[in-house]
Order: sequence, then structure tokens, then C-alpha cells
Amino acid sequence: MNLENLISTIGHLDESAMEAARARQDRLTKPQGSLGRLEEVSIRVAGITGQPLPILEKKAILVMAGDHGVVEEGVSAYPQEVTRQMVFNFLAGGAAINVLARHIGARVVVVDMGVAGDLSKHANLVVKKVASGTANIARGPAMTREQAMQAVISGAQVVEAEVERGLNILATGDMGIGNTTPSAAIASALTGRAPEQIVGRGTGVDDSGLERKVDAVRRALLTNNPNPKDGMDVLAKVGGFEIAGLTGAILAAAASRIPIVVDGFISTAAAMIAVTLQPRVREYLIAGHCSQELGHRLMMEWLGLEPFLDLNMRLGEGSGAALAISLVEAACKTLVEMATFEEAGVADKASV
Amino acid sequence: MNLENLISTIGHLDESAMEAARARQDRLTKPQGSLGRLEEVSIRVAGITGQPLPILEKKAILVMAGDHGVVEEGVSAYPQEVTRQMVFNFLAGGAAINVLARHIGARVVVVDMGVAGDLSKHANLVVKKVASGTANIARGPAMTREQAMQAVISGAQVVEAEVERGLNILATGDMGIGNTTPSAAIASALTGRAPEQIVGRGTGVDDSGLERKVDAVRRALLTNNPNPKDGMDVLAKVGGFEIAGLTGAILAAAASRIPIVVDGFISTAAAMIAVTLQPRVREYLIAGHCSQELGHRLMMEWLGLEPFLDLNMRLGEGSGAALAISLVEAACKTLVEMATFEEAGVADKASV
Repeated sequence: MNLENLISTIGHLDESAMEAARARQDRLTKPQGSLGRLEEVSIRVAGITGQPLPILEKKAILVMAGDHGVVEEGVSAYPQEVTRQMVFNFLAGGAAINVLARHIGARVVVVDMGVAGDLSKHANLVVKKVASGTANIARGPAMTREQAMQAVISGAQVVEAEVERGLNILATGDMGIGNTTPSAAIASALTGRAPEQIVGRGTGVDDSGLERKVDAVRRALLTNNPNPKDGMDVLAKVGGFEIAGLTGAILAAAASRIPIVVDGFISTAAAMIAVTLQPRVREYLIAGHCSQELGHRLMMEWLGLEPFLDLNMRLGEGSGAALAISLVEAACKTLVEMATFEEAGVADKASV
Repeated sequence: MNLENLISTIGHLDESAMEAARARQDRLTKPQGSLGRLEEVSIRVAGITGQPLPILEKKAILVMAGDHGVVEEGVSAYPQEVTRQMVFNFLAGGAAINVLARHIGARVVVVDMGVAGDLSKHANLVVKKVASGTANIARGPAMTREQAMQAVISGAQVVEAEVERGLNILATGDMGIGNTTPSAAIASALTGRAPEQIVGRGTGVDDSGLERKVDAVRRALLTNNPNPKDGMDVLAKVGGFEIAGLTGAILAAAASRIPIVVDGFISTAAAMIAVTLQPRVREYLIAGHCSQELGHRLMMEWLGLEPFLDLNMRLGEGSGAALAISLVEAACKTLVEMATFEEAGVADKASV
């Protein structure tokens, strides 16, 4: 796969599909605009897919996993082995994302992008491991530029395989102990905001853990000096393998005109890299929810996105995006299935 | 049915079921608290139902319809006949609430509480008509106290019949051209806020329509002088038949320990009356969404509720509540179905 080709394939939204969807929304049996953001998102999905009556039957939640050398700075409340253990939990169906995926009728696609150590083989585990965890970003680059490229391409390939299986909407998700730290470094590098405005408590570090995280991000940026105009440089220097995989997944979904529901802090960092590589990606993104993690709202603002949900969640895995997918699907169903004023014999707005 | 008995049946939440649910949430494979409001609501549903592992399989959306004499003041953008026409649309399955109910796997229960004119018989229409629309509240009471009582009892009976059919969670919904006006009058009477802080554009009146609405609410309160300590007095003087029916439905659901997801402006006015009649009802209420209608947030604050969704919706019918039911169900599924740390062999939080 050629990444340049993939990126150049990504076009603008289909204006005529959006116009048709907008006109239909205005004829459905409800006051115009009364379904608020449901109407807006149904119109945008029409533009993304090019279908005036989009049907989001085939849904996938992509959970990409990787480990992070920066955990040696004491930035996480959990030991690194939890990444691997949670991958097995995903494969056994016992994690939050499995429950939520079953609830909304989506499949979960679990990918090893760079978990530390070998994972035993499992029929449902997609293996795209670049290396057994990144290097410590507080002391040097997370990975080489070649590894970053490989991870992005691997992520894109995972989505292309899912498109082959049939895919109407994609949610991004992540697992990786320590991964709020590189995500914060990416966000700080791209927004220009200071680390202390971005870094949060992740899985729940205490005050001294938070100080160590802020310090680790500050050192990562000083040591590596990532170039905010060069997404691949930022990714390689202060990113992570699962973040890079998600970046590729987002690019491939946009190239295939599939709506992408972005989850929380880590997925949003990946989306920011994707937008840096191709600004048109922004039009394909739907913000699932606002994470409780400190900098997430700033990141959403940088992307120009307004989150659908705000439920004080901070789990990752795609959990917020999964809940939002159900809202986006509901929105499209209203567009497709509701009766028009004419069909239902209901009087339209009177001039009073 | 004796309303006093019903009201006195409503008890407090089951603390031991809540404690068991809380303890289980803390052992599930996720950082404690990371599912945010999903965890909170799952614990509250445990307390409401008395089940530490609540299952919300049987879901109903109650759409109560009524007409309003105050429409002669020019307070709505739609003609009164739309109430009746939309009831037929609900019965035919073409309205937004039908689409959303199918999406979340809920049944829709349509009730004629006081629609103007006769509705032709329909197997799925529940007829509890008190009268063919209320009187004009800007000039006198909406209904007699006896009619208000009858409507509340009828609403309670509808829910009791649904409980017989099997019911785990209820969403409230409404249909009634002009019904944001009596709802605003109820909210103004109970919160003590001026009508201009409460009254919004409903289905979409223009500036002069908005002035007429504010004026109608002001006259309704001056003419009728409802007693805010007496919920039945407020309901009879400035309410509506569908609002009264929803009040009864909420009381009956609370008495049966069934969680109630409150929809927007009209449902919230009904919930405020129910709480005035029995303050413990508050513990059974889940705020589905924040309506775009002006005073809704003030009403939510008065009830002490924080809405789940904020999607700029202003449709009614139970549309916001239907979407929220799916989130509440998802929350309970995480509580019931997720693996614990022990079950999944995942290491719990380390001391770093």
C-alpha cells in the first residue's frame, strides 16, 4: 500500500447527497430542525457515504493495542501487563467494549499493534505488531519514522479488510497502559498548548503521578522537538503503535467514505495526526464523546468537532464511540424511515 | 384506584441493592469510575428496581396526547388538527418516536388523554379521553379538579396495565399542539420564575408568537392563581390532559419501582407535578435529555436532575427519552455482563 495514494484518495463530502438528505429531513413529520443534532449528523453521514438515505447496518469497533516505554517514568496507575491481559479480556468478551458492542450490534476487531511480549495466537486477534512496545519518549523517540509508517499502513490495511467484510460505520478504540502520556504529547505538540493544560489523570494517577506525567510530556517534547507541520514526525517521536494504527485506520476509512466515530483522548490524538496528514479527514470524523481526561475538549476544538455525549467517561476501548454509534444510527434511521407530511396526511406549519 | 394509596406506596430506593451494585462496579475490569455516569445510573437503577443486577429488557415509551384551548391565543406554529393527525402517524409507525422505539427495542403505547374531536377506533390506541381538549388557560382553568384527578388516575392505570404486560423501564412522551404553553405555566408556577425565563418557541413560533405565548402564560397565572404547594391545583388550573396523564403514569411507575426516563419540556412539567404530590418520586426519575426549549434546564435544576443527552432536540413524543433509555440499558448491561478483575485474570490498580 502506498500511503501517499491513500491520502490523496480522500475527497470532499458529497454535496448532492447532503442536499437530498437535508430536503428530506425538512419534509418529515416533525417541526423542521426539531431533531437537532440527529438531523445534522444524518445529513453529514449522507455526505460522507454519498448515500441520500444511508443505512448503517454493519458496524465495527476497532480496538488497537500497544505498549509504551514511558511507563518506566511512573505515569500509570496500572502495571504494563494489564495491556496484554485486557487484550485477552477483549477476546473473551468480558470487557466494557464487548458489552457495549453487543448492545449496539457491532463487531469488535482487536489488533495487536505493539503489545509488550508475545500474545498467544487467537483466531480473533489481528496481529500487526511493529515491536514489543515503544521506547521511552521522555528520553528519545518512541519509534523510527519507518516504524511509524509501517504502523499507519498496517492500521489502514486492517480497515481495508473490514471494508471487504462489509462496513458502514467505524468506531475507533484503544488499549495501552501509559497511552494517555504520548497522546498528551501529540496534543501538546499540535495545539501548542502547555502540557499542564492537556495532561490528565488517565486511569487514575494521584497528584504525584500527575506531576510525573506532566514532566514526562515536557521532556518528551524538549528531547524530541517534534515538527507540528509533519504528522509522521510527531507520531514517530512522541506517539505509540496503537495511535499510529488508529491514524492509518482513520485515513483508510475516510478514503472508503466510511463515517468514523472518534472515541476519547487516545483516538482523538490519532485523529489529529490523520488531519495533519490530510485536512479533509476532518469532514469524516464524528466526535463520539467528551472524555473526562483534561485536554480532550481542547483537542476537540482543534479538530472543530462537538462531541455527541458527555458522560464523564474516561475508559477508552472505544466505549464512548460505541454509545455514539447508536445515536448516529438512530439519526440515519429517522431520515430513512420517518413518514413525510404528505405520506402521513399531517398538516405542515401554518402561518400564525 | 385510590390516588392517596398510590402516592403513599412510593418508597425510597433500595440501599442494599445499590451497595451491591456499587461494590460490583468497583470489581469490574476498568479503572474505578471510568464509565462515569453509566456507573452512577446502573447503581441507581439497582436501587429503583431493588435488583443488584438489573435487566432492562422490557421497555415502553408512553406517548400521551391531548389538545389545548390556549391555542386560540395563537401560541403554536401548527394548527390544532395536527395533534389528531400525529396520533394516527404514531399508530401507523411513521413518526420519529416509532423509528427510535424500534431502534432501541421498545414498544410505543399511544394514549388519547384529551384530543379534540373523536379519534376513530384503533386496536393500538388506548382511550382515556377526559374531554376534547382543555379550556383556554389564559381565560380560566384548564379543567376542573375532578377532571385533573381523573386524568392522573387514568395515566396511572395505563402504566399498571403495562406493568401487567411486563415492564422494566418507562419513557414518557407527549403530543399536543400548544402544550409547551401549559407546561411553561406549570414550570413558572412551581419554580417561581417569570414566564419570560421559561417560555420558548415550541414547534417554532416567530417573535410575535413568542410574545403571545409569554403573555398567555402570564395571564394564565394571574387569572387562575395556582397554588404551588398543591400540585393538583396547578395541574387543574394551568395544565393539560396529557400532562396530567403523564403525572399519573410517573406516580404509578415509581410505585411499581420502575425507572422513569423523563423526556423534554412537557414530560418534565408532568414530573414536577408528580414530585409536588410525592417528593420521593424524584429518586425514580432519570433525565433523558436537555430540550432546546428555553426553561427546560431551570426545570431540571428544580428537580435536581442532570440530563443524559444534550442534542439540541425539541420534538417531544419521548424522542430524547428513547435515546437515553438505550444508554441506561447499556449501563445496566456493563454492570451485569462485564468480567471482574478476578474472572478475567487482570491485575488491579498498582501503587505507583
